[in-house]
Amino acid sequence: MSLYQKSKAVDECSPLSEAEGESVLALIEELFPICRSITGNGVRQTLATLQRYIPLEINEVPSGTSVLDWTVPREWNIRDAYIARPDGTRIVDFAANNLHIVQYSPPVDAVMPLAELRRHLHTLPDRPEWIPYRTSYYAENWGFCLTHNQLSGLADGLYRVVIDADLAPGHLSYGELFIPGESDDTILFSCHICHPSLANDNLSGIAVATMLARHVQTLRPRHSYRFLFIPGTIGSLTWLARNEDKLGRIVHGLVLSCLGDGGGMTYKQSRRGNAAINRIVAHVLAHDEVPHRIAPFVPYGYDERQYCSPGFDLPVGCLMRTPNGEYAEYHSSADNLSLLRPESLAHSLAVLRRIVAVIEGDAVYQSRNPKGEPQLGRRGLYGALGGQRAASYDQMALLWVLNFADGRHSLLDVAERAGLPFATIRAAADALLAADLLEPVPVRC
Amino acid sequence: MSLYQKSKAVDECSPLSEAEGESVLALIEELFPICRSITGNGVRQTLATLQRYIPLEINEVPSGTSVLDWTVPREWNIRDAYIARPDGTRIVDFAANNLHIVQYSPPVDAVMPLAELRRHLHTLPDRPEWIPYRTSYYAENWGFCLTHNQLSGLADGLYRVVIDADLAPGHLSYGELFIPGESDDTILFSCHICHPSLANDNLSGIAVATMLARHVQTLRPRHSYRFLFIPGTIGSLTWLARNEDKLGRIVHGLVLSCLGDGGGMTYKQSRRGNAAINRIVAHVLAHDEVPHRIAPFVPYGYDERQYCSPGFDLPVGCLMRTPNGEYAEYHSSADNLSLLRPESLAHSLAVLRRIVAVIEGDAVYQSRNPKGEPQLGRRGLYGALGGQRAASYDQMALLWVLNFADGRHSLLDVAERAGLPFATIRAAADALLAADLLEPVPVRC
Amino acid sequence: MSLYQKSKAVDECSPLSEAEGESVLALIEELFPICRSITGNGVRQTLATLQRYIPLEINEVPSGTSVLDWTVPREWNIRDAYIARPDGTRIVDFAANNLHIVQYSPPVDAVMPLAELRRHLHTLPDRPEWIPYRTSYYAENWGFCLTHNQLSGLADGLYRVVIDADLAPGHLSYGELFIPGESDDTILFSCHICHPSLANDNLSGIAVATMLARHVQTLRPRHSYRFLFIPGTIGSLTWLARNEDKLGRIVHGLVLSCLGDGGGMTYKQSRRGNAAINRIVAHVLAHDEVPHRIAPFVPYGYDERQYCSPGFDLPVGCLMRTPNGEYAEYHSSADNLSLLRPESLAHSLAVLRRIVAVIEGDAVYQSRNPKGEPQLGRRGLYGALGGQRAASYDQMALLWVLNFADGRHSLLDVAERAGLPFATIRAAADALLAADLLEPVPVRC
Repeated sequence: MSLYQKSKAVDECSPLSEAEGESVLALIEELFPICRSITGNGVRQTLATLQRYIPLEINEVPSGTSVLDWTVPREWNIRDAYIARPDGTRIVDFAANNLHIVQYSPPVDAVMPLAELRRHLHTLPDRPEWIPYRTSYYAENWGFCLTHNQLSGLADGLYRVVIDADLAPGHLSYGELFIPGESDDTILFSCHICHPSLANDNLSGIAVATMLARHVQTLRPRHSYRFLFIPGTIGSLTWLARNEDKLGRIVHGLVLSCLGDGGGMTYKQSRRGNAAINRIVAHVLAHDEVPHRIAPFVPYGYDERQYCSPGFDLPVGCLMRTPNGEYAEYHSSADNLSLLRPESLAHSLAVLRRIVAVIEGDAVYQSRNPKGEPQLGRRGLYGALGGQRAASYDQMALLWVLNFADGRHSLLDVAERAGLPFATIRAAADALLAADLLEPVPVRC
Repeated sequence: MSLYQKSKAVDECSPLSEAEGESVLALIEELFPICRSITGNGVRQTLATLQRYIPLEINEVPSGTSVLDWTVPREWNIRDAYIARPDGTRIVDFAANNLHIVQYSPPVDAVMPLAELRRHLHTLPDRPEWIPYRTSYYAENWGFCLTHNQLSGLADGLYRVVIDADLAPGHLSYGELFIPGESDDTILFSCHICHPSLANDNLSGIAVATMLARHVQTLRPRHSYRFLFIPGTIGSLTWLARNEDKLGRIVHGLVLSCLGDGGGMTYKQSRRGNAAINRIVAHVLAHDEVPHRIAPFVPYGYDERQYCSPGFDLPVGCLMRTPNGEYAEYHSSADNLSLLRPESLAHSLAVLRRIVAVIEGDAVYQSRNPKGEPQLGRRGLYGALGGQRAASYDQMALLWVLNFADGRHSLLDVAERAGLPFATIRAAADALLAADLLEPVPVRC
Repeated sequence: MSLYQKSKAVDECSPLSEAEGESVLALIEELFPICRSITGNGVRQTLATLQRYIPLEINEVPSGTSVLDWTVPREWNIRDAYIARPDGTRIVDFAANNLHIVQYSPPVDAVMPLAELRRHLHTLPDRPEWIPYRTSYYAENWGFCLTHNQLSGLADGLYRVVIDADLAPGHLSYGELFIPGESDDTILFSCHICHPSLANDNLSGIAVATMLARHVQTLRPRHSYRFLFIPGTIGSLTWLARNEDKLGRIVHGLVLSCLGDGGGMTYKQSRRGNAAINRIVAHVLAHDEVPHRIAPFVPYGYDERQYCSPGFDLPVGCLMRTPNGEYAEYHSSADNLSLLRPESLAHSLAVLRRIVAVIEGDAVYQSRNPKGEPQLGRRGLYGALGGQRAASYDQMALLWVLNFADGRHSLLDVAERAGLPFATIRAAADALLAADLLEPVPVRC
């Protein structure tokens, strides 16, 4: 609570139009049917689609390449998979939903009794209408996922199981976009692209990251920006192993996932609690009308686990709406297009733009008149008539910036102390710069 | 909550008598009718009145003098001002209330239709019975303030407007009292004297500061004290510009205003959050029975804005009851003598005396028997009979002082940690000094 | 609240059996009737009893020895004491309850009227059935304690008063047990043994300390352990004065008292707020099902007053259930065996064992694969099937340890950050050590 009442915050960014939310959704709809995994043609098709939006560079890393403690696995491609009755009727069919297959299932063509088949079947008994999403990347197990209702309906007897897939040396594919800025100091945005037909996790993150990259391309940014579209875990490990020389330039980073559901915002902090990105995101969310929560770092979740491993300890947090594991539809066929809301996608993108605006706009200034207040009135920055009840909203912002233009406080520091949105403080600083009352201090912030 | 129950705090200062509250009020009543502004004879008359109480030095600074980014304005003196009907009937008359004139209005003698006059009239539509207080020090505009009811009653037609005022080269006047102490380390008290007939803002501050100065004169203080009675903004800027060599000796400071209304206490912290004055005032208020709040520094309000500008950054807070802008009568004719309560004036003065007592009494000691507790019993400082339920209130204070007499904790540190009033801790230290159990440590605190 | 849901904490220590609680109680029952004081044969008899459990070294310090600011007093031994009617009927009799005599009463044999006797009588008017406990160690006063009902029943007239006691040069006795560990870094446990027939204060502390010492003897501890059984105040002062050369090795310490009542746990912090023992105890209590509170240091209570005096400032806290002075029966005949609960004694001992387990088990490790997560799956430490809703409880502990195995965080740091019990984190570290994923870092913690 400030001592002197404030008027309502100005709207610092025009909200994205509904049309923009729809265009994010259109990209998601195009990507939804593709069967992605941590390798394979589904990933390539996804990256090729994104190249229509942004000039993504595509990297191919051979199977067997050592990446840190791991090895790039064989490439997995699947053409067909089904469980059929003896009469040939398909009762579980990959063609109907690509979640039906446990990812990285090796090829199978066998007939077996239900009792044996059952050991390869995965369901969600609590959600009998949903198909679970399961993987077995690093242990060779085949399996099918189906609804619990389907399983309950299976009669004893023999079933034919066919998985027409390749699990063979190939490549791991990932996409990368580097947008150079005035400085080599780099902001990292990373999203995982390995999930098949799951909408919120993580086509929402992929599509929002793509649109954010398009926005950054329209700026002449002070910082450089790097966008990664990578398979989870093995993709970030691969990128980290190949780019150790670049890590020192990463000044802030965010993993983006689950950005399209109807929930509020969740920011999971970087391992280093004092990382600037933690303050930046917290500030932006604090001045947003959508509810949010700030969660401390936990060594579980998405690729922040790798970026924040102790040998790297990068200042990378994770921005989500409802986090992984906390919405009922997570990792099931119910995480489909109907879970997404265009206004959530547009809002997530707006929040990220505001985060970029803080990163780009933050700076340290020094007052040219640090002793006493400069006379704002004769510069047209202060009302002529005195005795009013309180300073106007804009006058307060001017006074805050002037009072803390001491070469030690950044504009974000001032915004936090004033309880005002960064954009208001930035605008006040611009007015004072125009009146020649401030000068920049060469400090990186 | 301390682990061991405490008895109720001893009353550390005898409250001021009701008579003292009345004598503060008598000074205010004498000053109330004078038309003060940031310059002029009203200020001189005010300072001359105060000289009957304290040996104030009066300074006169010529118009046109550069003070930091500002210039001392012309001097304004007003003799008469009114709005009259064509028949000569005065309908708004400076003689009735000196708030009727916008401060620093230049001389006018004109006849004009209501439509034109209206652009120079100021009212409070929400408070139709009150006259607002308005100024135009640095932009040459004439104007009248009146009740909204008066304005509503004005018929169309011509009106005569007369302002018989001088706005001419002269001086800015301010009063200063320096009370030397053992050390040059100085405590600054500052109050603004520029408001016309407004009682709480700030005749209350002026009168309480005057009585506090009289109190300090009766001490043989360890610190030096400087009291400033100055016009708001331009006065503090002027004093700062002329006394830069003295600023380094200011170890604590308080701006005093709005100290007579019936509200609780408000302490607005110094810009430097870790300034000792912030702790001292918070401690005194925490042990007071009147409700209080501690507000963080905000670069708006009174002359703390100037003292706390980044080029000075002095450890100066602001002590008020209800802050400026937060009581309905603020800057209007309703801020008159009826708003003041003698008990509030007396209480404000008592709080300030207690603040001075902490400043004067704080010190760092070292135990002469730091290993284990000294045997208080054989020195008559501890009850002879053991096994009682808890230590007595005074014994606890002795134990606190002894345990933290380590050369690193001041008595205020001990009082804060013990949750006891400073005066209790000071008394315990005095008893231990008398028993030769403590020795002073030469640390400034 | 962690971002990712946790399962319920594993039970980290098997709770002590009811039988163990009973065996603690049996020791207390044996010690209860003895009339202890700060010196004398009651103390010797108590220490001799403890020697049947642990190899206690008994120290005898002559009366008159200077210890810091104090002097070891004369030894007090009492054989008989009573108040009798002229006909010889004993109406207050030491043989009935050793609380009837004010400790350190000198010998008396006199007849006096009730009016004079009354000045030597102590009662608890609010608790008319209870006998208070009173002492007069350092001022020579005789006195009797009795129930208020007894006092009310006394008729006017003459009474014979007999105290058959010696107050003569002798010794102060205390017991000490040093259990050497790999390192000289020492953990201090101290309990006062000077109270007569009071059960919770402090036969509970004596008996629990004895059983804890037996437990530590079964370990091959990394740290050394020192157990002190001493008279309050003068005993700790004496030990401190005689062992100044050993104080620098004390890395953690606890005073133990009031550990048998039915209340929750209370931990009173060491004077140094950042002492590791404060974190250790707080951690153990936070993961315990019994309610607890953490109280800041206060220079009153038990021998922590002496250990934490400014010239020593040892990292010593105090562990209690209901603190001294906060239960009604405190320092009265109602603090008897019926106040104790075997399950509380067993629980207090279990908490202390867990504290020892943290002290012994804490360590700093470094990951051998700090860059990215090591692949736990191929080491059998991670489930093969991916896509599950959340990591298992044990997997989370592994991830926490790995992520903070950076050579700067101890396992206790990790446990605190993870919100998991130390034992869970310790077990995860052991599994990772077995898989050769961690290496110890030579840091004392």
